[in-house]
Amino acid sequence: MADKPQVLRETDDEARRLARLLVRGARFMALGVIDPETGFPSVSRALTATDFDGVPVILVSALSGHTKGLAADPRCSLLAGEPGKGDPLAHPRITLQCRADTVERDTEDHARIRHRFLGRHPKASLYVDFPDFRFFRLLPQTASLNGGFGRAYVLAGSDLLIEEPGNGREWLELQDRLKEMAEAAALCAEQWGAEKGRPWRFAGVDRSGVDLVGGDLHFRHEFATPAASPGIVFDCISNVAKVIPLPEN
Amino acid sequence: MADKPQVLRETDDEARRLARLLVRGARFMALGVIDPETGFPSVSRALTATDFDGVPVILVSALSGHTKGLAADPRCSLLAGEPGKGDPLAHPRITLQCRADTVERDTEDHARIRHRFLGRHPKASLYVDFPDFRFFRLLPQTASLNGGFGRAYVLAGSDLLIEEPGNGREWLELQDRLKEMAEAAALCAEQWGAEKGRPWRFAGVDRSGVDLVGGDLHFRHEFATPAASPGIVFDCISNVAKVIPLPEN
Repeated sequence: MADKPQVLRETDDEARRLARLLVRGARFMALGVIDPETGFPSVSRALTATDFDGVPVILVSALSGHTKGLAADPRCSLLAGEPGKGDPLAHPRITLQCRADTVERDTEDHARIRHRFLGRHPKASLYVDFPDFRFFRLLPQTASLNGGFGRAYVLAGSDLLIEEPGNGREWLELQDRLKEMAEAAALCAEQWGAEKGRPWRFAGVDRSGVDLVGGDLHFRHEFATPAASPGIVFDCISNVAKVIPLPEN
Repeated sequence: MADKPQVLRETDDEARRLARLLVRGARFMALGVIDPETGFPSVSRALTATDFDGVPVILVSALSGHTKGLAADPRCSLLAGEPGKGDPLAHPRITLQCRADTVERDTEDHARIRHRFLGRHPKASLYVDFPDFRFFRLLPQTASLNGGFGRAYVLAGSDLLIEEPGNGREWLELQDRLKEMAEAAALCAEQWGAEKGRPWRFAGVDRSGVDLVGGDLHFRHEFATPAASPGIVFDCISNVAKVIPLPEN
Protein backbone atom coordinates (compact mmCIF):
# COMPACT_ATOMS: atom_id res chain seq x y z
CA MET A 1 0.00 0.00 0.00
CA ALA A 2 1.72 3.15 -1.21
CA ASP A 3 5.18 3.39 0.32
CA LYS A 4 4.24 1.17 3.23
CA PRO A 5 6.85 -1.51 3.59
CA GLN A 6 4.73 -3.46 6.10
CA VAL A 7 6.65 -6.65 6.59
CA LEU A 8 9.85 -6.85 4.60
CA ARG A 9 9.95 -9.85 2.36
CA GLU A 10 12.83 -12.27 2.44
CA THR A 11 15.31 -11.24 -0.22
CA ASP A 12 15.45 -13.94 -2.87
CA ASP A 13 17.13 -14.28 -6.26
CA GLU A 14 14.12 -12.81 -8.04
CA ALA A 15 14.38 -9.63 -5.95
CA ARG A 16 18.14 -9.44 -6.57
CA ARG A 17 17.56 -9.85 -10.28
CA LEU A 18 14.94 -7.08 -10.34
CA ALA A 19 17.27 -4.82 -8.35
CA ARG A 20 20.10 -5.37 -10.83
CA LEU A 21 17.84 -4.76 -13.82
CA LEU A 22 16.63 -1.48 -12.33
CA VAL A 23 20.14 -0.21 -11.63
CA ARG A 24 21.85 -1.50 -14.77
CA GLY A 25 18.97 -0.56 -17.06
CA ALA A 26 18.65 3.02 -15.82
CA ARG A 27 19.35 5.85 -18.22
CA PHE A 28 19.43 8.39 -15.41
CA MET A 29 18.78 8.39 -11.69
CA ALA A 30 17.91 10.82 -8.94
CA LEU A 31 21.09 11.51 -6.98
CA GLY A 32 20.95 12.63 -3.36
CA VAL A 33 23.96 14.29 -1.73
CA ILE A 34 24.43 16.34 1.40
CA ASP A 35 24.71 20.07 0.76
CA PRO A 36 28.01 21.05 2.42
CA GLU A 37 26.77 24.56 3.20
CA THR A 38 23.46 23.70 4.86
CA GLY A 39 23.61 19.99 5.71
CA PHE A 40 20.31 19.54 3.85
CA PRO A 41 19.94 16.64 1.48
CA SER A 42 19.88 17.79 -2.14
CA VAL A 43 18.40 15.69 -4.94
CA SER A 44 19.23 16.27 -8.59
CA ARG A 45 19.22 14.24 -11.80
CA ALA A 46 22.29 12.60 -13.28
CA LEU A 47 22.93 10.47 -16.34
CA THR A 48 24.16 7.08 -15.17
CA ALA A 49 25.93 4.02 -16.47
CA THR A 50 27.51 1.07 -14.69
CA ASP A 51 31.14 0.02 -14.58
CA PHE A 52 32.07 -3.53 -15.67
CA ASP A 53 31.73 -4.66 -12.04
CA GLY A 54 28.17 -3.34 -11.77
CA VAL A 55 29.04 -0.17 -9.82
CA PRO A 56 26.94 2.83 -10.93
CA VAL A 57 28.94 5.72 -12.41
CA ILE A 58 28.06 9.36 -13.00
CA LEU A 59 29.73 12.10 -15.03
CA VAL A 60 29.40 15.49 -13.35
CA SER A 61 30.77 19.00 -13.51
CA ALA A 62 32.85 20.38 -10.66
CA LEU A 63 30.65 23.47 -10.85
CA SER A 64 27.48 21.57 -9.99
CA GLY A 65 25.94 21.32 -6.56
CA HIS A 66 26.05 17.54 -6.46
CA THR A 67 29.79 17.44 -7.21
CA LYS A 68 30.51 19.93 -4.42
CA GLY A 69 28.42 17.75 -2.14
CA LEU A 70 30.26 14.55 -3.06
CA ALA A 71 33.64 16.24 -2.72
CA ALA A 72 32.78 17.27 0.85
CA ASP A 73 31.03 14.03 1.89
CA PRO A 74 31.10 10.82 -0.18
CA ARG A 75 27.82 9.56 1.30
CA CYS A 76 25.12 9.68 -1.35
CA SER A 77 21.99 7.96 -2.57
CA LEU A 78 20.55 6.90 -5.92
CA LEU A 79 16.94 6.26 -6.88
CA ALA A 80 16.44 4.13 -10.00
CA GLY A 81 13.27 2.92 -11.72
CA GLU A 82 10.94 5.26 -13.58
CA PRO A 83 7.16 4.96 -13.33
CA GLY A 84 5.22 4.12 -16.45
CA LYS A 85 1.45 4.35 -16.77
CA GLY A 86 -0.89 4.22 -13.82
CA ASP A 87 -0.06 4.69 -10.16
CA PRO A 88 3.60 5.76 -9.81
CA LEU A 89 3.87 3.75 -6.58
CA ALA A 90 2.87 0.53 -8.35
CA HIS A 91 6.12 0.61 -10.36
CA PRO A 92 9.33 -0.99 -9.09
CA ARG A 93 12.10 1.31 -7.92
CA ILE A 94 15.21 0.99 -5.82
CA THR A 95 16.99 3.25 -3.37
CA LEU A 96 20.74 2.79 -3.00
CA GLN A 97 23.00 4.22 -0.36
CA CYS A 98 26.43 4.62 -1.94
CA ARG A 99 29.91 5.85 -1.21
CA ALA A 100 31.35 8.02 -3.98
CA ASP A 101 34.90 7.51 -5.25
CA THR A 102 36.45 9.98 -7.69
CA VAL A 103 37.85 8.34 -10.81
CA GLU A 104 41.28 9.84 -11.49
CA ARG A 105 42.05 10.84 -15.06
CA ASP A 106 44.83 9.09 -17.00
CA THR A 107 44.12 5.78 -15.34
CA GLU A 108 42.89 2.51 -16.79
CA ASP A 109 39.73 2.84 -14.69
CA HIS A 110 39.02 6.23 -16.24
CA ALA A 111 39.55 4.99 -19.78
CA ARG A 112 37.26 2.00 -19.20
CA ILE A 113 34.51 3.99 -17.50
CA ARG A 114 34.69 6.71 -20.16
CA HIS A 115 34.40 4.11 -22.92
CA ARG A 116 31.43 2.39 -21.28
CA PHE A 117 29.70 5.67 -20.44
CA LEU A 118 29.98 6.96 -24.00
CA GLY A 119 28.71 3.61 -25.30
CA ARG A 120 25.48 4.44 -23.46
CA HIS A 121 25.46 8.22 -23.78
CA PRO A 122 27.24 9.11 -27.04
CA LYS A 123 26.22 12.77 -26.75
CA ALA A 124 28.27 13.08 -23.58
CA SER A 125 31.35 13.01 -25.86
CA LEU A 126 30.69 16.75 -26.30
CA TYR A 127 31.76 17.51 -22.73
CA VAL A 128 33.31 14.37 -21.21
CA ASP A 129 36.84 15.72 -21.67
CA PHE A 130 36.17 19.24 -20.36
CA PRO A 131 38.61 19.82 -17.50
CA ASP A 132 35.87 20.39 -14.92
CA PHE A 133 34.06 17.12 -15.65
CA ARG A 134 34.82 13.97 -13.80
CA PHE A 135 33.49 10.51 -13.13
CA PHE A 136 32.51 9.11 -9.78
CA ARG A 137 31.99 5.45 -8.99
CA LEU A 138 29.11 5.18 -6.52
CA LEU A 139 29.79 2.02 -4.56
CA PRO A 140 26.52 0.55 -3.20
CA GLN A 141 26.54 0.00 0.57
CA THR A 142 22.95 -1.10 0.99
CA ALA A 143 19.75 -0.95 -1.02
CA SER A 144 16.04 -0.89 -0.50
CA LEU A 145 13.93 -2.37 -3.29
CA ASN A 146 10.25 -1.60 -3.67
CA GLY A 147 8.85 -3.98 -6.24
CA GLY A 148 5.37 -2.39 -6.07
CA PHE A 149 2.65 -2.41 -3.42
CA GLY A 150 3.67 -4.51 -0.43
CA ARG A 151 6.80 -5.88 -2.06
CA ALA A 152 9.68 -4.37 -0.08
CA TYR A 153 13.11 -5.90 0.25
CA VAL A 154 16.43 -4.93 1.76
CA LEU A 155 19.55 -5.86 -0.18
CA ALA A 156 23.25 -5.81 0.55
CA GLY A 157 25.38 -3.53 -1.61
CA SER A 158 27.21 -6.66 -2.79
CA ASP A 159 23.96 -7.93 -4.38
CA LEU A 160 24.43 -5.24 -7.00
CA LEU A 161 28.04 -6.06 -7.81
CA ILE A 162 29.44 -8.39 -10.44
CA GLU A 163 31.91 -10.74 -8.80
CA GLU A 164 35.27 -11.34 -10.46
CA PRO A 165 34.42 -9.02 -13.35
CA GLY A 166 37.45 -10.13 -15.35
CA ASN A 167 39.65 -8.08 -17.63
CA GLY A 168 38.14 -4.70 -18.44
CA ARG A 169 40.06 -4.29 -21.67
CA GLU A 170 38.71 -7.56 -23.06
CA TRP A 171 35.14 -6.54 -22.30
CA LEU A 172 35.70 -3.20 -24.02
CA GLU A 173 37.02 -5.03 -27.07
CA LEU A 174 33.82 -7.05 -27.13
CA GLN A 175 31.81 -3.84 -26.73
CA ASP A 176 33.53 -2.42 -29.83
CA ARG A 177 32.93 -5.61 -31.76
CA LEU A 178 29.22 -5.67 -30.85
CA LYS A 179 28.90 -2.04 -31.87
CA GLU A 180 29.17 -3.10 -35.51
CA MET A 181 26.53 -5.81 -35.20
CA ALA A 182 23.29 -3.91 -35.75
CA GLU A 183 21.34 -6.88 -37.10
CA ALA A 184 22.33 -9.07 -34.18
CA ALA A 185 21.24 -6.30 -31.81
CA ALA A 186 17.79 -6.22 -33.40
CA LEU A 187 17.47 -9.99 -33.16
CA CYS A 188 18.69 -10.14 -29.57
CA ALA A 189 16.32 -7.34 -28.58
CA GLU A 190 13.44 -9.35 -30.00
CA GLN A 191 14.59 -12.58 -28.36
CA TRP A 192 15.12 -10.92 -24.98
CA GLY A 193 11.76 -9.17 -24.95
CA ALA A 194 12.81 -5.53 -25.47
CA GLU A 195 10.18 -3.13 -26.77
CA LYS A 196 9.47 -3.58 -30.45
CA GLY A 197 10.13 -1.08 -33.20
CA ARG A 198 13.16 0.60 -31.62
CA PRO A 199 16.52 1.06 -33.37
CA TRP A 200 18.29 -1.21 -30.88
CA ARG A 201 22.08 -1.28 -30.72
CA PHE A 202 24.53 -2.91 -28.33
CA ALA A 203 25.76 -0.25 -25.92
CA GLY A 204 27.79 -2.18 -23.36
CA VAL A 205 28.61 -5.64 -22.11
CA ASP A 206 29.99 -7.25 -18.97
CA ARG A 207 30.07 -10.77 -17.65
CA SER A 208 26.63 -10.40 -16.10
CA GLY A 209 24.74 -9.13 -19.15
CA VAL A 210 24.28 -6.80 -22.08
CA ASP A 211 23.05 -3.20 -22.38
CA LEU A 212 20.97 -2.28 -25.40
CA VAL A 213 20.04 1.27 -26.33
CA GLY A 214 17.15 2.06 -28.66
CA GLY A 215 16.65 5.79 -29.04
CA ASP A 216 15.52 7.07 -25.64
CA LEU A 217 15.15 3.62 -24.15
CA HIS A 218 17.71 1.53 -22.32
CA PHE A 219 17.23 -2.20 -21.98
CA ARG A 220 19.31 -4.46 -19.80
CA HIS A 221 19.52 -8.17 -20.46
CA GLU A 222 20.93 -10.25 -17.61
CA PHE A 223 22.38 -13.69 -18.26
CA ALA A 224 21.10 -16.59 -16.14
CA THR A 225 24.62 -16.96 -14.74
CA PRO A 226 27.67 -14.72 -15.24
CA ALA A 227 29.67 -15.57 -18.35
CA ALA A 228 33.15 -17.01 -17.95
CA SER A 229 34.66 -14.91 -20.76
CA PRO A 230 33.88 -12.32 -23.43
CA GLY A 231 34.25 -15.07 -26.05
CA ILE A 232 31.35 -17.01 -24.58
CA VAL A 233 29.13 -13.92 -24.67
CA PHE A 234 30.08 -13.31 -28.28
CA ASP A 235 29.16 -16.90 -29.15
CA CYS A 236 25.89 -16.61 -27.26
CA ILE A 237 24.91 -13.43 -29.12
CA SER A 238 25.91 -14.93 -32.44
CA ASN A 239 23.77 -17.97 -31.67
CA VAL A 240 20.73 -15.88 -30.71
CA ALA A 241 21.16 -14.08 -34.00
CA LYS A 242 21.35 -17.42 -35.82
CA VAL A 243 18.26 -18.88 -34.15
CA ILE A 244 15.93 -16.12 -35.39
CA PRO A 245 15.91 -15.82 -39.16
CA LEU A 246 16.06 -12.30 -40.54
CA PRO A 247 12.79 -11.18 -42.08
CA GLU A 248 12.86 -11.42 -45.86
CA ASN A 249 12.79 -8.17 -47.74
CA MET B 1 26.08 21.63 -20.88
CA ALA B 2 24.80 18.66 -18.89
CA ASP B 3 24.51 19.57 -15.22
CA LYS B 4 27.03 22.40 -15.57
CA PRO B 5 25.56 25.52 -14.11
CA GLN B 6 28.36 27.70 -15.54
CA VAL B 7 27.16 31.17 -14.81
CA LEU B 8 23.89 31.34 -12.95
CA ARG B 9 21.30 33.40 -14.78
CA GLU B 10 19.51 36.20 -13.07
CA THR B 11 16.26 34.87 -11.67
CA ASP B 12 13.36 36.50 -13.51
CA ASP B 13 9.59 36.03 -13.53
CA GLU B 14 9.81 33.49 -16.33
CA ALA B 15 12.12 31.31 -14.23
CA ARG B 16 9.84 31.69 -11.20
CA ARG B 17 6.86 30.71 -13.31
CA LEU B 18 8.61 27.62 -14.66
CA ALA B 19 9.66 26.67 -11.12
CA ARG B 20 6.07 26.93 -9.89
CA LEU B 21 4.72 24.93 -12.81
CA LEU B 22 7.24 22.15 -12.16
CA VAL B 23 6.41 21.91 -8.46
CA ARG B 24 2.65 22.41 -8.67
CA GLY B 25 2.25 20.21 -11.75
CA ALA B 26 4.20 17.24 -10.35
CA ARG B 27 2.38 14.00 -9.78
CA PHE B 28 5.26 12.59 -7.76
CA MET B 29 8.75 13.68 -6.82
CA ALA B 30 12.02 12.17 -5.65
CA LEU B 31 12.30 12.83 -1.92
CA GLY B 32 15.69 12.97 -0.23
CA VAL B 33 15.99 12.57 3.55
CA ILE B 34 18.85 11.80 5.88
CA ASP B 35 18.93 8.20 7.09
CA PRO B 36 18.97 8.50 10.90
CA GLU B 37 20.95 5.28 11.31
CA THR B 38 23.77 5.96 8.86
CA GLY B 39 23.68 9.69 8.09
CA PHE B 40 23.57 8.84 4.39
CA PRO B 41 21.12 10.66 2.15
CA SER B 42 18.30 8.39 1.05
CA VAL B 43 16.19 9.10 -2.03
CA SER B 44 12.78 7.53 -2.58
CA ARG B 45 9.63 8.33 -4.56
CA ALA B 46 6.55 9.98 -3.08
CA LEU B 47 3.20 11.08 -4.44
CA THR B 48 2.93 14.81 -4.04
CA ALA B 49 0.36 17.57 -4.05
CA THR B 50 0.52 21.19 -2.94
CA ASP B 51 -1.32 22.93 -0.15
CA PHE B 52 -3.41 26.03 -0.97
CA ASP B 53 -0.36 28.20 -0.19
CA GLY B 54 1.83 26.34 -2.69
CA VAL B 55 3.72 24.25 -0.12
CA PRO B 56 4.37 20.69 -1.37
CA VAL B 57 2.75 17.95 0.70
CA ILE B 58 3.39 14.23 0.91
CA LEU B 59 1.42 11.35 2.43
CA VAL B 60 3.69 8.72 3.92
CA SER B 61 3.60 5.70 6.19
CA ALA B 62 5.34 5.77 9.57
CA LEU B 63 6.84 2.42 8.61
CA SER B 64 8.71 3.83 5.61
CA GLY B 65 12.32 4.88 5.61
CA HIS B 66 11.61 8.43 4.51
CA THR B 67 9.16 9.02 7.37
CA LYS B 68 11.70 7.78 9.92
CA GLY B 69 14.21 10.13 8.35
CA LEU B 70 11.90 13.15 8.48
CA ALA B 71 10.92 12.38 12.06
CA ALA B 72 14.58 12.44 13.10
CA ASP B 73 15.66 15.42 10.96
CA PRO B 74 13.20 17.71 9.12
CA ARG B 75 15.79 18.71 6.50
CA CYS B 76 14.84 17.17 3.17
CA SER B 77 14.93 17.73 -0.57
CA LEU B 78 12.54 17.31 -3.48
CA LEU B 79 13.31 16.86 -7.16
CA ALA B 80 10.45 17.69 -9.55
CA GLY B 81 10.25 17.62 -13.34
CA GLU B 82 10.25 14.38 -15.30
CA PRO B 83 12.21 13.98 -18.54
CA GLY B 84 10.30 13.35 -21.72
CA LYS B 85 11.86 12.28 -24.99
CA GLY B 86 15.48 12.89 -25.86
CA ASP B 87 18.32 13.82 -23.52
CA PRO B 88 17.08 13.69 -19.90
CA LEU B 89 19.32 16.65 -19.04
CA ALA B 90 17.64 18.85 -21.66
CA HIS B 91 14.38 18.76 -19.68
CA PRO B 92 13.60 21.29 -16.95
CA ARG B 93 13.75 20.12 -13.35
CA ILE B 94 13.98 21.72 -9.97
CA THR B 95 15.69 20.81 -6.71
CA LEU B 96 14.12 22.11 -3.51
CA GLN B 97 15.58 22.12 -0.05
CA CYS B 98 12.69 21.92 2.38
CA ARG B 99 11.90 21.71 6.05
CA ALA B 100 9.27 19.08 6.89
CA ASP B 101 6.39 19.84 9.25
CA THR B 102 4.07 17.07 10.43
CA VAL B 103 0.40 17.83 9.84
CA GLU B 104 -1.51 16.91 12.99
CA ARG B 105 -4.74 14.97 12.56
CA ASP B 106 -8.08 16.50 13.59
CA THR B 107 -6.99 19.97 12.54
CA GLU B 108 -8.30 22.25 9.84
CA ASP B 109 -4.93 22.01 8.08
CA HIS B 110 -5.22 18.23 7.97
CA ALA B 111 -8.77 18.32 6.60
CA ARG B 112 -7.79 20.81 3.89
CA ILE B 113 -4.62 18.98 2.87
CA ARG B 114 -6.42 15.63 2.87
CA HIS B 115 -9.18 17.07 0.66
CA ARG B 116 -6.70 18.60 -1.79
CA PHE B 117 -4.50 15.50 -1.86
CA LEU B 118 -7.43 13.20 -2.62
CA GLY B 119 -8.59 15.60 -5.34
CA ARG B 120 -5.33 14.79 -7.09
CA HIS B 121 -4.82 11.21 -6.00
CA PRO B 122 -8.28 9.67 -5.47
CA LYS B 123 -6.81 6.18 -5.03
CA ALA B 124 -5.03 7.35 -1.90
CA SER B 125 -8.44 7.27 -0.20
CA LEU B 126 -7.75 3.55 0.28
CA TYR B 127 -5.04 4.24 2.86
CA VAL B 128 -5.12 7.95 3.78
CA ASP B 129 -6.92 7.25 7.06
CA PHE B 130 -4.79 4.31 8.16
CA PRO B 131 -3.38 5.19 11.59
CA ASP B 132 0.26 4.96 10.44
CA PHE B 133 -0.18 7.38 7.53
CA ARG B 134 0.41 11.07 7.90
CA PHE B 135 0.93 14.20 5.87
CA PHE B 136 3.99 16.40 5.92
CA ARG B 137 4.17 19.93 4.60
CA LEU B 138 7.60 20.42 3.03
CA LEU B 139 8.32 24.11 3.36
CA PRO B 140 10.74 25.27 0.62
CA GLN B 141 13.83 27.03 1.94
CA THR B 142 15.70 27.46 -1.31
CA ALA B 143 15.52 26.00 -4.81
CA SER B 144 17.76 25.37 -7.76
CA LEU B 145 16.08 25.39 -11.17
CA ASN B 146 17.67 23.83 -14.20
CA GLY B 147 15.67 24.89 -17.22
CA GLY B 148 17.78 22.79 -19.59
CA PHE B 149 21.35 23.14 -20.86
CA GLY B 150 23.00 26.27 -19.48
CA ARG B 151 19.82 27.63 -17.91
CA ALA B 152 20.46 27.46 -14.17
CA TYR B 153 18.78 29.67 -11.60
CA VAL B 154 18.68 29.92 -7.83
CA LEU B 155 15.34 30.77 -6.25
CA ALA B 156 14.22 31.70 -2.79
CA GLY B 157 11.83 29.33 -1.06
CA SER B 158 9.30 32.18 -1.02
CA ASP B 159 9.25 32.19 -4.84
CA LEU B 160 7.31 28.93 -4.59
CA LEU B 161 4.73 30.15 -2.09
CA ILE B 162 1.34 31.72 -2.72
CA GLU B 163 1.09 34.92 -0.73
CA GLU B 164 -2.05 35.61 1.29
CA PRO B 165 -3.65 32.35 0.19
CA GLY B 166 -7.05 33.32 1.60
CA ASN B 167 -9.62 31.10 3.25
CA GLY B 168 -8.91 27.42 2.76
CA ARG B 169 -12.52 26.36 3.25
CA GLU B 170 -13.73 28.66 0.46
CA TRP B 171 -11.15 27.24 -1.95
CA LEU B 172 -12.22 23.70 -1.07
CA GLU B 173 -15.83 24.65 -1.76
CA LEU B 174 -14.78 25.87 -5.18
CA GLN B 175 -12.82 22.63 -5.69
CA ASP B 176 -16.01 20.64 -4.98
CA ARG B 177 -18.03 22.84 -7.30
CA LEU B 178 -15.50 22.46 -10.15
CA LYS B 179 -15.48 18.70 -9.64
CA GLU B 180 -18.95 18.51 -11.20
CA MET B 181 -17.97 20.61 -14.23
CA ALA B 182 -16.53 18.02 -16.58
CA GLU B 183 -17.37 19.93 -19.77
CA ALA B 184 -15.77 23.10 -18.49
CA ALA B 185 -12.66 21.11 -17.56
CA ALA B 186 -12.39 19.83 -21.13
CA LEU B 187 -12.79 23.33 -22.55
CA CYS B 188 -10.31 24.91 -20.12
CA ALA B 189 -7.77 22.16 -20.84
CA GLU B 190 -8.05 22.98 -24.54
CA GLN B 191 -7.83 26.72 -23.95
CA TRP B 192 -4.84 26.42 -21.60
CA GLY B 193 -2.86 24.13 -23.90
CA ALA B 194 -3.08 20.82 -22.01
CA GLU B 195 -2.45 17.63 -23.98
CA LYS B 196 -5.36 16.72 -26.20
CA GLY B 197 -7.51 13.62 -25.91
CA ARG B 198 -7.24 13.21 -22.15
CA PRO B 199 -10.24 12.87 -19.81
CA TRP B 200 -9.43 16.14 -18.04
CA ARG B 201 -11.10 17.00 -14.76
CA PHE B 202 -10.54 19.78 -12.26
CA ALA B 203 -8.52 18.37 -9.36
CA GLY B 204 -7.70 21.40 -7.25
CA VAL B 205 -7.71 25.16 -7.18
CA ASP B 206 -5.99 27.97 -5.27
CA ARG B 207 -5.62 31.66 -5.85
CA SER B 208 -2.58 31.14 -8.04
CA GLY B 209 -4.03 28.59 -10.46
CA VAL B 210 -5.85 25.38 -11.24
CA ASP B 211 -4.80 21.71 -11.25
CA LEU B 212 -6.20 19.46 -13.93
CA VAL B 213 -5.84 15.69 -13.94
CA GLY B 214 -6.32 13.62 -17.07
CA GLY B 215 -5.64 9.95 -16.43
CA ASP B 216 -1.94 9.67 -15.63
CA LEU B 217 -1.19 13.27 -16.49
CA HIS B 218 -1.24 16.32 -14.26
CA PHE B 219 -1.49 19.76 -15.75
CA ARG B 220 -1.06 22.98 -13.83
CA HIS B 221 -2.49 26.23 -15.15
CA GLU B 222 -1.12 29.37 -13.48
CA PHE B 223 -3.06 32.61 -13.62
CA ALA B 224 -1.23 35.74 -14.84
CA THR B 225 -1.80 37.25 -11.38
CA PRO B 226 -3.22 35.62 -8.23
CA ALA B 227 -7.01 35.79 -8.03
CA ALA B 228 -8.59 37.95 -5.36
CA SER B 229 -11.28 35.40 -4.50
CA PRO B 230 -12.69 31.97 -5.39
CA GLY B 231 -15.67 33.72 -7.00
CA ILE B 232 -13.43 35.40 -9.55
CA VAL B 233 -11.83 32.08 -10.46
CA PHE B 234 -15.25 30.53 -10.89
CA ASP B 235 -16.29 33.37 -13.19
CA CYS B 236 -13.06 33.07 -15.16
CA ILE B 237 -13.55 29.34 -15.69
CA SER B 238 -17.19 29.83 -16.63
CA ASN B 239 -16.13 32.47 -19.15
CA VAL B 240 -13.47 30.25 -20.71
CA ALA B 241 -16.14 27.60 -21.04
CA LYS B 242 -18.47 30.10 -22.67
CA VAL B 243 -15.89 31.38 -25.15
CA ILE B 244 -15.30 27.98 -26.72
CA PRO B 245 -18.47 26.46 -28.11
CA LEU B 246 -19.04 22.80 -27.31
CA PRO B 247 -18.60 20.56 -30.34
CA GLU B 248 -21.93 19.51 -31.82
CA ASN B 249 -22.83 15.87 -31.55
